[in-house]
Amino acid sequence: MTIHICPAEFLAFAHKMADASGEVVRSYFRQSFAVEEKKDLSPVTIADRKAEQAMHVLLAQERPDDGVIGEEFGVEREDAELLWVIDPIDGTRAFVSGKPMFGTLISLLQDGVPILGVIDQPILRERWIGAIGHETTFNGKVARTRPCSKLAHAIVNLGPQAFPFGNAVSLDAYRRVAKAALTTTVAGDCYTYGLFSSGHIDLCIEHDLKIYDFAALVPIVEGAGGCVTDWKGQKLTRQSTGNVLAAGDIRLLEETVALIEGAL
Amino acid sequence: MTIHICPAEFLAFAHKMADASGEVVRSYFRQSFAVEEKKDLSPVTIADRKAEQAMHVLLAQERPDDGVIGEEFGVEREDAELLWVIDPIDGTRAFVSGKPMFGTLISLLQDGVPILGVIDQPILRERWIGAIGHETTFNGKVARTRPCSKLAHAIVNLGPQAFPFGNAVSLDAYRRVAKAALTTTVAGDCYTYGLFSSGHIDLCIEHDLKIYDFAALVPIVEGAGGCVTDWKGQKLTRQSTGNVLAAGDIRLLEETVALIEGAL
Repeated sequence: MTIHICPAEFLAFAHKMADASGEVVRSYFRQSFAVEEKKDLSPVTIADRKAEQAMHVLLAQERPDDGVIGEEFGVEREDAELLWVIDPIDGTRAFVSGKPMFGTLISLLQDGVPILGVIDQPILRERWIGAIGHETTFNGKVARTRPCSKLAHAIVNLGPQAFPFGNAVSLDAYRRVAKAALTTTVAGDCYTYGLFSSGHIDLCIEHDLKIYDFAALVPIVEGAGGCVTDWKGQKLTRQSTGNVLAAGDIRLLEETVALIEGAL
Repeated sequence: MTIHICPAEFLAFAHKMADASGEVVRSYFRQSFAVEEKKDLSPVTIADRKAEQAMHVLLAQERPDDGVIGEEFGVEREDAELLWVIDPIDGTRAFVSGKPMFGTLISLLQDGVPILGVIDQPILRERWIGAIGHETTFNGKVARTRPCSKLAHAIVNLGPQAFPFGNAVSLDAYRRVAKAALTTTVAGDCYTYGLFSSGHIDLCIEHDLKIYDFAALVPIVEGAGGCVTDWKGQKLTRQSTGNVLAAGDIRLLEETVALIEGAL
């Protein structure tokens, strides 16, 4: 497995996909449409499907040899060296309630490793993009996480997955972190990781994320100077359980991994 | 106690206060500032204080006989017939993390009854205003809740207060509602009630709100065709416990009150 610096053409193509998806999503935002429940009880709409389709069309036209994992339409050419992982509306719950706190997630895996990620908020027109060998940018300007030496000074975002049906292990971990933090917010949208990468939030903890939820976050967070791992401090891969810990300052990561160890 | 149609001059003055507060809040958004913890463990910043001050100055200049309850500076002339209840940043947690999902809340009580309410999001420049005898507006256009005959079809917002330290009673109530709903979001910001009043969310349930959290919501929700009560279906007053239930369609209110009755 060789990890190269992510070529600029991949970044340009990722921007193009985000543009195409955003155009579709904007046309449905705060309009009337049916909300269906998926098997996992999460909602889905025509906007998710049409936006993902728009990205599939671009891929078929311009990068037919690459593989793709989409949240709605499944997997194509999974064994390709380059695999795009796309989720047109991460945060469909926010989308269906008219709240511009969802995001389009696009990532590119090379031999299973995320080398590029986009978080795009098409209503507010805010876009973070990160890639190996590049600094993360927010609307074209460099984005950096901020230093924070300990949880007692940290603004921490807790994922909402533990609420109201969460399991005891995750609730215990969340509670330990919440108790140690300066203050907490509760959100499960990728937009939060954008703000984190711009240095407004110090730590994010979530569990049970899927590959299309977290793959894009890795290059964005790392390219902004932060670190993102599972709850044991291990690098995220396609095989990860989806328990995610992102820290803007590595000292916070170490403190948190130690703190929640007893809960796991 | 006589409730008059809210005079247009009060609406004009409320707009003026929201403008003044918004100007201050915008100047601090996503900037660097200290976050302090209040006694109730919620965060507060210089932006909260300066924005509230700007509104106090306007009140002193233009309406010196009216009373005021502010979240940060307490109570003045509480016995006045007209009492303004203001919270410059409802959702300080969102504000400090750079998320434009907080709001400025302004309400006017006449003899203890909310007759006017404003929810203003100064970053997105979105404003809902409602008052007795007036239709609720969103950025100047009429806002209406939408019909929804039962929870099984409803998009429901759950307050985050039960998470992660909530008590058993509220958790049980939230769980019952979440289980019956089509889909749920979790948020504690007033912006959610704005979206609700514009017909994007069908039901909101929250507990332990303070008077400055819910007073503004009442005229906005009612002027948009919705209903807002405590968890037993009783009208909200200054004496309410702060358990709030808002339904865009009265059938949802009835179903929810019956559903959570056993939890209380």
